[in-house]
Amino acid sequence: MQAKPVKNCYSMEKQQRRNTLEPFLLDERIARDSQSILKLGLCDLRLAHDSRWPWLILVPQRSGMIEVFDLTPLDQAMLTFEQVTVAAALKKVTGATKINIAAIGNVVRQLHVHVVARFEDDPNWPGPIWGHGSPIAHSDDTFNALKSRILEALQ
Amino acid sequence: MQAKPVKNCYSMEKQQRRNTLEPFLLDERIARDSQSILKLGLCDLRLAHDSRWPWLILVPQRSGMIEVFDLTPLDQAMLTFEQVTVAAALKKVTGATKINIAAIGNVVRQLHVHVVARFEDDPNWPGPIWGHGSPIAHSDDTFNALKSRILEALQ
Repeated sequence: MQAKPVKNCYSMEKQQRRNTLEPFLLDERIARDSQSILKLGLCDLRLAHDSRWPWLILVPQRSGMIEVFDLTPLDQAMLTFEQVTVAAALKKVTGATKINIAAIGNVVRQLHVHVVARFEDDPNWPGPIWGHGSPIAHSDDTFNALKSRILEALQ
Repeated sequence: MQAKPVKNCYSMEKQQRRNTLEPFLLDERIARDSQSILKLGLCDLRLAHDSRWPWLILVPQRSGMIEVFDLTPLDQAMLTFEQVTVAAALKKVTGATKINIAAIGNVVRQLHVHVVARFEDDPNWPGPIWGHGSPIAHSDDTFNALKSRILEALQ
């Protein structure tokens, strides 16, 4: 009698990946282009080094995640909670016309979610921010002022 | 004695908006640019009239919603569940390099979430799809074939 084929290999492999004990390592490009301002339950909350838009990035601190559906259902729920909380805080702080939320990852594969405050007179409005022009660095003062206001709104 | 000011007006107003009995009306531009292929628990799942990318749109069927944080927490959880389910199905059907998920809404304010299959040789890769070039309509055959495969993957 032949051994039965293992059913649903994909799910087993995925489950093994989820259970890995590999430490979480932040992607080098995300590390270079943004700075951590707060560690949430799941995500590292980061502020982008680009003053053209108030631009936050949430990075789930789980090893090997690429797509949102790679996360466990509990982590998916936590990510939703954290991104909604951060989006509402960013709206409150900036008075933005619209908050843009996106998980794209065509360039950097490590799962990360952009939360960006948009205004009708900002660069590339109403087009997307990704791939548009070149970053304009914050001064230490503008970076720290924005960071403080966001952290205050999250309290 | 003066009447006390109403505390937390914003939340009350938001609650009233959530409880409104106004019927859900689909935005005219979304209606024109895409076609409903399935009604989920919360969202109308729509396939875009643009053959350049396999492009789905989820529209929460709630009146007056603009930002994700306008939804009730239960609807936020449902939206997450539906977008993750749809994203995984789209990945399975297309074998995409990367799934892009985004709630932007700079042009059309009614809350809607894009779920798009991306490939390394597709138009504007690795840049975003929004605001890039002009739509290229599906033929009835390619539209219906993609619709059928997505619906099958969702079963």
